[in-house]
Amino acid sequence: MKSALYNKGLEALNKIHGSHSGETIVRDMEKICPDFGRMTIEWAFGEIMTRPALDLKTRELVIIASCVTLGHAAPQLEAHIEAALNVGATKEEIVEVILQMAIYAGFAAATNSFYVLKKVLERMGS
Amino acid sequence: MKSALYNKGLEALNKIHGSHSGETIVRDMEKICPDFGRMTIEWAFGEIMTRPALDLKTRELVIIASCVTLGHAAPQLEAHIEAALNVGATKEEIVEVILQMAIYAGFAAATNSFYVLKKVLERMGS
Amino acid sequence: MKSALYNKGLEALNKIHGSHSGETIVRDMEKICPDFGRMTIEWAFGEIMTRPALDLKTRELVIIASCVTLGHAAPQLEAHIEAALNVGATKEEIVEVILQMAIYAGFAAATNSFYVLKKVLERMGS
Amino acid sequence: MKSALYNKGLEALNKIHGSHSGETIVRDMEKICPDFGRMTIEWAFGEIMTRPALDLKTRELVIIASCVTLGHAAPQLEAHIEAALNVGATKEEIVEVILQMAIYAGFAAATNSFYVLKKVLERMGS
Amino acid sequence: MKSALYNKGLEALNKIHGSHSGETIVRDMEKICPDFGRMTIEWAFGEIMTRPALDLKTRELVIIASCVTLGHAAPQLEAHIEAALNVGATKEEIVEVILQMAIYAGFAAATNSFYVLKKVLERMGS
Amino acid sequence: MKSALYNKGLEALNKIHGSHSGETIVRDMEKICPDFGRMTIEWAFGEIMTRPALDLKTRELVIIASCVTLGHAAPQLEAHIEAALNVGATKEEIVEVILQMAIYAGFAAATNSFYVLKKVLERMGS
Repeated sequence: MKSALYNKGLEALNKIHGSHSGETIVRDMEKICPDFGRMTIEWAFGEIMTRPALDLKTRELVIIASCVTLGHAAPQLEAHIEAALNVGATKEEIVEVILQMAIYAGFAAATNSFYVLKKVLERMGS
Repeated sequence: MKSALYNKGLEALNKIHGSHSGETIVRDMEKICPDFGRMTIEWAFGEIMTRPALDLKTRELVIIASCVTLGHAAPQLEAHIEAALNVGATKEEIVEVILQMAIYAGFAAATNSFYVLKKVLERMGS
Repeated sequence: MKSALYNKGLEALNKIHGSHSGETIVRDMEKICPDFGRMTIEWAFGEIMTRPALDLKTRELVIIASCVTLGHAAPQLEAHIEAALNVGATKEEIVEVILQMAIYAGFAAATNSFYVLKKVLERMGS
Repeated sequence: MKSALYNKGLEALNKIHGSHSGETIVRDMEKICPDFGRMTIEWAFGEIMTRPALDLKTRELVIIASCVTLGHAAPQLEAHIEAALNVGATKEEIVEVILQMAIYAGFAAATNSFYVLKKVLERMGS
Repeated sequence: MKSALYNKGLEALNKIHGSHSGETIVRDMEKICPDFGRMTIEWAFGEIMTRPALDLKTRELVIIASCVTLGHAAPQLEAHIEAALNVGATKEEIVEVILQMAIYAGFAAATNSFYVLKKVLERMGS
Repeated sequence: MKSALYNKGLEALNKIHGSHSGETIVRDMEKICPDFGRMTIEWAFGEIMTRPALDLKTRELVIIASCVTLGHAAPQLEAHIEAALNVGATKEEIVEVILQMAIYAGFAAATNSFYVLKKVLERMGS
């Protein structure tokens, strides 16, 4: 049986990343490390992402800033650009975050991240 | 004579980081690389920081996210925690950004950043 | 009231990092972000550190490897060198981990980490 | 003529990464930088990897920890997951190291590394 | 109308990275963030790359060193290996820079970068 | 007895970083990991630093670029700024390398590195 935290996290995850996103994580991790799937859902989504002191849109924008800065988190950057759009961020706001990162994470990290944004927007037909 | 971009950047810099912040940067860089002082003011502040598509508070929060993620940018993290408070962010919002970074940048980066926040808050008497 | 996970984590934390270590984290985070203190204890120590599939000594050695590689986690590196010694690692094993990291994280990261080890050993009088 | 260190390193390299691994490195580097192939074999394998103060399995686990933390070392992570299995680590121990890294290197680095582990295990038919 | 800085930067960009390189950046960024294309040309090329205190070849070699060290900047590393060859660096000098980085950025970063160099040289038929 | 490589490396080290620099490394590492002192001298200085395909000044400039990019290598950055000046680089050339890094490693890394340069120059009375 799943914990209340798990169910709360799964609901947030599906709301933010699109329905069935939770199922994908759970299925992908099932044969590798099912506890990591559970921790991602319980901790990252059930505990932290749903805290009221910061709205979801701002959370997604700071996560995008972190993924741009890490440089090696392209899959997460892609997922959170989609998530940011899902929770109400505009393309223009996401562009500004990546542009702002040129100053802190460097032009290479910003350039590569703009190409990830381009790919997401093209897939969405915008 | 300073460019219009420089004056616009200097005004933004002093507004965000406190009066005379621009003078400090200019003075510190004067004997090392005065052009870097000018570029910081013209580009980072005159061009990027003042773009209207993202409000200043959200900009400061994504910069904090980037500094936490870099890990080696403690002086900048400190300056931008103060700046975030100057432009209207609450302590609670800054706490949430650092906490969110525990998931992306790791617990060590988040812990060290919380101590920087603690130092800023103690200096401000809050 | 604290959760069972919290109490399990606190016990592990005090065992690994020395008695009263949990109190220090809780006290330091109390005015900043008490939930982060709780999450550190519940998640990092109550959930992950105590999983049986890897012994505590090996866990501490892989954490040391990660801190050396991060480069900006000197306080954590220091704490986990002490912790590794507490749970049975020898000085020689810690030396080997840092030396191995010269190949992966570079000689600068290894050199700085050897100085952290030197400081810990001198404080312990060895 | 190859040095004694080279021959010792080549033997260790082939034992750890599978027969003919040394030939691959030497061949790949031949037209680019043959000395780098030699240094990898002499230094990384002949000198460091074979030091007795840490067993090979623990060495591979700390190398995995470093590759997860670097974030941009997917080819090396893949090779050292295979190497760890070759020298006696279990799938469960490798899972624990990656899970432990979620706390230090972040969930994005851990997630991407779990997918590398998944790929290796699927290729090995397990 | 383009600024004098833009035209100066575009000329440098096309000289260093090959004719029409500027057009590619401008076209790629057009629908995403045209200002980032402009800033790259004005700032990185018009302002910094053309400063007389360091010759272009040495600039390209230090940029290669930075891209190797970042680890996640493979597209930029590839572009600047080509650029270095365009402005007079030899294959041997580029090899030396990557080899030197093995000490500072680690063997994984150096190995992955040597493969990028191999790819560029093979494409150029050398 | 020391190897020929060791003596060659020690000579290069003392020439580049100032007389007795080798003694300092050997003494500091003696009680921690004497082999790491030897490897630093044999490999980094005896093998790599003295290769003829790149002059010492350019080597020091690419090492500075790497240290700026790493962000957490302030002690090494300081030592190599001094070394660059020792082997014939001008203050202006070092300034250019750090300024160039603003584009690749970000403005925070560049700013912190300019302060390291400032400290070295003030100590040298220039």
